[in-house]
Amino acid sequence: MGNAIIFSLDLFGTAIFAISGVLIASRRRMDLFGALVLACVTAIGGGTIRDMALGASPVFWVENGLYLWVILGASLGSVLLLNNFPTPPRWLLPVADAIGMAVFMAIGANKAYQYGSPMIVAVTMGVITACGGGMIRDVLANQVPLVLQREVYATACIVGGLVWVAALYLQFSDTIATSACILTALLIRLVAIRYHLSLPKLAKNR
Amino acid sequence: MGNAIIFSLDLFGTAIFAISGVLIASRRRMDLFGALVLACVTAIGGGTIRDMALGASPVFWVENGLYLWVILGASLGSVLLLNNFPTPPRWLLPVADAIGMAVFMAIGANKAYQYGSPMIVAVTMGVITACGGGMIRDVLANQVPLVLQREVYATACIVGGLVWVAALYLQFSDTIATSACILTALLIRLVAIRYHLSLPKLAKNR
Amino acid sequence: MGNAIIFSLDLFGTAIFAISGVLIASRRRMDLFGALVLACVTAIGGGTIRDMALGASPVFWVENGLYLWVILGASLGSVLLLNNFPTPPRWLLPVADAIGMAVFMAIGANKAYQYGSPMIVAVTMGVITACGGGMIRDVLANQVPLVLQREVYATACIVGGLVWVAALYLQFSDTIATSACILTALLIRLVAIRYHLSLPKLAKNR
Repeated sequence: MGNAIIFSLDLFGTAIFAISGVLIASRRRMDLFGALVLACVTAIGGGTIRDMALGASPVFWVENGLYLWVILGASLGSVLLLNNFPTPPRWLLPVADAIGMAVFMAIGANKAYQYGSPMIVAVTMGVITACGGGMIRDVLANQVPLVLQREVYATACIVGGLVWVAALYLQFSDTIATSACILTALLIRLVAIRYHLSLPKLAKNR
Repeated sequence: MGNAIIFSLDLFGTAIFAISGVLIASRRRMDLFGALVLACVTAIGGGTIRDMALGASPVFWVENGLYLWVILGASLGSVLLLNNFPTPPRWLLPVADAIGMAVFMAIGANKAYQYGSPMIVAVTMGVITACGGGMIRDVLANQVPLVLQREVYATACIVGGLVWVAALYLQFSDTIATSACILTALLIRLVAIRYHLSLPKLAKNR
Repeated sequence: MGNAIIFSLDLFGTAIFAISGVLIASRRRMDLFGALVLACVTAIGGGTIRDMALGASPVFWVENGLYLWVILGASLGSVLLLNNFPTPPRWLLPVADAIGMAVFMAIGANKAYQYGSPMIVAVTMGVITACGGGMIRDVLANQVPLVLQREVYATACIVGGLVWVAALYLQFSDTIATSACILTALLIRLVAIRYHLSLPKLAKNR
């Protein structure tokens, strides 16, 4: 997949994740600064942990100021629109979020791979990129991260990551492996949204 | 502003932030170790995230052990005094905290600037340095960070940062830009404390 | 102490900490992914913060994929066994955890020392390695970290660290200093478990 396409999807995911941060801030009755913080951590929190762990310094949003501008624009835009417009159709945000998640998964795994990490580390880095920001957002909003509890979200990431690993082992090109990863994760997530699928809870233990 | 003055103010802010961590630990009925941890994360948490993101390694308190000694001294001192002395006047700690906040803002922005970051990143790094530690402290105490909810705190930082950016664009010296940043942030924060100002909450949504 | 022994104990501690993460996830009714996340943060969270702060990049588990495999094995194993086997004797997990804690303390302090950190930083890095992961685990499970409240856990680490510093100042070999650190921390922790010792809470203030 061309770098320009990936970069566009990366910025799209960044904006969507920022908006999801603003929505949580709004539900938790935070102020504008709270909304900006939650937008930032959701959009760039996962990639920040990834880059710090990989030793990719400075982290991506320090090197390229565009990410923060996208977050600022998406946040202020959604704060302004929050009360002035009819709510968008209910499926819109989850579907956009699924696209962002699938893209972040592929970007994270590919970055770790470029840094020479073992495959299990690359898949983990993809999951951190896709899920880490939302987890920090939920911790700041003082709730157990949703992704740990109920959703086929991380699972979609992981399966996408395994498809990516398989494609690379089978010597498909990076472009094909990345496309397969994104489409697999996206498809699983959309099916889970459509049919309200979730993983079983662990047995109650003690 | 001279480096010695900034360094002194840095250590002053470190001590004040450590004491604020001890006070939260005490209210949450933690033990002495809990007090030390909350003192550390409040005092150096923000700067640690900043240095990790900038790729300034090792982070500042690893390079110079003095920061941890100041935190240790301030924490043990305030634990010892906690019950043995009359409480200080109620305005003392918030005012001291405002000084620390304004100084940390300027230090964070300047450090990012020295590392060649874009201006939006430098201002963000200032806010992280000033507000990040208190946010981690609140998360460890299992509450939504105060700064996300009710106070003109981060806003004072951001306005200070914008004044700093404007001063640099207008080709004032680093010393003048830094002084203007600190005084602006401090003044706004003190006015907010005096008149109990806070930002409006976001509209309740959904 | 030989490097092979330390490395074996390191992997042992990693597995034990992972299992403790799975148990918390199970009590909080998380799903399998939540269990894997809590296993990972408990087992490698502390060492990750340590390596990021020291500038040891990439962090240890990125360099060596074995850590993630051990966590994956320990987590899946304990999830499978959770309901199918009689619970192990109640003392088993705390004692195993104490061994992991003591070893992580020594590993963290030694790594900082090799990077040339001041002694106060080295002891702090040991405590971060031993206690940091459990603190992140508790934050993700939305509770105040246990270690900040009630247990002689961090205290055991710190005393072990002071013994290690004393041994190095007295020019004992690294092996002896490390062994003394591990045995001291372990002994204090085991005594605290056996006799239910805990630190006093800070005086209720304000």
